[in-house]
Amino acid sequence: MAKLYFRYSAMNAGKSTALLQVAHNYEEHGRVVRLFTSAIDHRYGVGIITSRLGPQRKVEVFDEVMDFYALLAQAQELSCVLLDEAQFLTPEQVRQLHRAAHVLGIPVMCYGIRSDFRGEPFPGSAYLLTLADSIEEIKTICACGKKATFNVRIDEYGKRIVEGEQIAIEGDVRYIQQCAQCFYLHRVPPLFDLT
Amino acid sequence: MAKLYFRYSAMNAGKSTALLQVAHNYEEHGRVVRLFTSAIDHRYGVGIITSRLGPQRKVEVFDEVMDFYALLAQAQELSCVLLDEAQFLTPEQVRQLHRAAHVLGIPVMCYGIRSDFRGEPFPGSAYLLTLADSIEEIKTICACGKKATFNVRIDEYGKRIVEGEQIAIEGDVRYIQQCAQCFYLHRVPPLFDLT
Amino acid sequence: MAKLYFRYSAMNAGKSTALLQVAHNYEEHGRVVRLFTSAIDHRYGVGIITSRLGPQRKVEVFDEVMDFYALLAQAQELSCVLLDEAQFLTPEQVRQLHRAAHVLGIPVMCYGIRSDFRGEPFPGSAYLLTLADSIEEIKTICACGKKATFNVRIDEYGKRIVEGEQIAIEGDVRYIQQCAQCFYLHRVPPLFDLT
Amino acid sequence: MAKLYFRYSAMNAGKSTALLQVAHNYEEHGRVVRLFTSAIDHRYGVGIITSRLGPQRKVEVFDEVMDFYALLAQAQELSCVLLDEAQFLTPEQVRQLHRAAHVLGIPVMCYGIRSDFRGEPFPGSAYLLTLADSIEEIKTICACGKKATFNVRIDEYGKRIVEGEQIAIEGDVRYIQQCAQCFYLHRVPPLFDLT
Repeated sequence: MAKLYFRYSAMNAGKSTALLQVAHNYEEHGRVVRLFTSAIDHRYGVGIITSRLGPQRKVEVFDEVMDFYALLAQAQELSCVLLDEAQFLTPEQVRQLHRAAHVLGIPVMCYGIRSDFRGEPFPGSAYLLTLADSIEEIKTICACGKKATFNVRIDEYGKRIVEGEQIAIEGDVRYIQQCAQCFYLHRVPPLFDLT
Repeated sequence: MAKLYFRYSAMNAGKSTALLQVAHNYEEHGRVVRLFTSAIDHRYGVGIITSRLGPQRKVEVFDEVMDFYALLAQAQELSCVLLDEAQFLTPEQVRQLHRAAHVLGIPVMCYGIRSDFRGEPFPGSAYLLTLADSIEEIKTICACGKKATFNVRIDEYGKRIVEGEQIAIEGDVRYIQQCAQCFYLHRVPPLFDLT
Repeated sequence: MAKLYFRYSAMNAGKSTALLQVAHNYEEHGRVVRLFTSAIDHRYGVGIITSRLGPQRKVEVFDEVMDFYALLAQAQELSCVLLDEAQFLTPEQVRQLHRAAHVLGIPVMCYGIRSDFRGEPFPGSAYLLTLADSIEEIKTICACGKKATFNVRIDEYGKRIVEGEQIAIEGDVRYIQQCAQCFYLHRVPPLFDLT
Repeated sequence: MAKLYFRYSAMNAGKSTALLQVAHNYEEHGRVVRLFTSAIDHRYGVGIITSRLGPQRKVEVFDEVMDFYALLAQAQELSCVLLDEAQFLTPEQVRQLHRAAHVLGIPVMCYGIRSDFRGEPFPGSAYLLTLADSIEEIKTICACGKKATFNVRIDEYGKRIVEGEQIAIEGDVRYIQQCAQCFYLHRVPPLFDLT
């Protein structure tokens, strides 16, 4: 039976690389997959999934009004749905994707981050974590060497920002990943290039 | 470094058994653990963790105003904190426990269910899934044989209830665990004894 | 589709408890399971699986000549096979159980330790780790507080034994679980009662 | 404390991609890693780790006489060791790497396959599975759509080979990954291009 998978990590851990690899594995067998990313994230251009190792790929875009169940109910010969930036799904869309897996029989693999710069859950991620049949972490490290689980927002001077909107992609903000200890102890994140 | 662990499952999968086993493993080494369960759940009596295999144990009780960080900051020689019915934690309490693990260095293991009878997240569980350093499923089966992930509420006649309060423990309601497919297709759950 | 599961740990971590809980979960749904333990292990009597939390249960016994595939090919209405002390399976028996899962469609859950007192693999465990569709660790702690992965053999005076037969259950030998660091640094294990 | 990690999968699942991503994650933080692959595998040239998504990288080469513990005991400022084709390690080398993690404190991440074309364990993999502190599967699919766990050897005409040396990389042999059911039922693997 098909499942809903959630692969989570801090930012910059390799989610997009892993997603592109799974798509490659399916397509090598001549199978059809559909790839989506969020319209919100246009860091690398709208509708592009980019591995920091180099490869990138043009994919479909989802916004918050797309009805995934209606969309997938019409799909034919579809072997897998892969979504990047899944934290931007609405709770209702997560439900649609979960139902698609279990009623339509289409495996759905979602990749995203769990929490925002304050350590608060993204609503989409909270529902993915609640409903997913398989939850797996893609690990990366904090500057201190421990496993990073948080995404700290910093300004152009490397200063940590602790208040603001949940989603901020444009402008001078940047994100670095930190472990829980550095996050709570407000260790000053080192400034390095994450372009 | 200490971690926050979340071990989730549908109801009746063996969470309390697993928790009592971990306590036993620590205590066998002469180590001190503290066990908690929710004041809300009094199915087997207040402050008792009961394995359906038989063993049970009197433990401390938490309510929604307990400040875990303040409590644990005073603890001495404490090797582990174990919490049952962790879905009844408040988001703030989950934050306290996570901070206790990473700042005080005390491992915290929480056992609970992810979603209510409608498939909606418990707030405490959503935060545990968001912050936990380690997430693991304890599996059980649906009547159909597949993995159960939902907790369906039924009335005294075995009829499924789809509306109501998130928490209902007393009275004539009961819960059975179902797989996602049976949950969505509203398969009638077989009536069996879960006392 | 059915799978071969291997749940491994150091000794005294709760494997038998977990196995009895899974059997309980199946039987609560009116399903038939078959439980096996090794004829070699008679610490608690032949053919008895004992949880250190208290519960125990009389089960079938396997020796090294039992043909599991032939046995299970005749089974009817069988929902799951559960084996304790699975490190004592022969490689050929592991193959039979794996084939039974994938050709006969019967889930097989094996519980056992990975390595002997020298840190060398048990042949049965090496094949279980090679063929299992799902591998999961049941964790316990070393006296030092870290995760234990080794089973150190000690004599009646608490002195570590580093040479001898792979299997020694009778007589004055005992086993304690240690983490890899204590194992390699030959830290003297503290003497405590593990009866 | 450092750990020995084993990430296993069937061939062509994305192990090298995952390994290169982890190296990238460390290096992005200015940390030093050392990468190794086996001298035996020269499909893409000696000492080159190649992701099927495109990226590749020149790395160090190990043969069966290299003493990893001696090598790593001299290392300075080393944050992680990453090994591809780890099934070609000798049991003794796996022990060296495990000891390096726990005594020298250097994390070691090994990527490899578990079994050969007959479903028999590689000695190195059997020891990695026995000693690794963390075991994780990288999944890929069989032509039938189920999870592939076996590496079937086929000749130039697509015919399955069931006897021969454990290692055969040159000449007209090729490998395809299959699920356990297709493996046992000797389903004829479809011929597709895996260059």
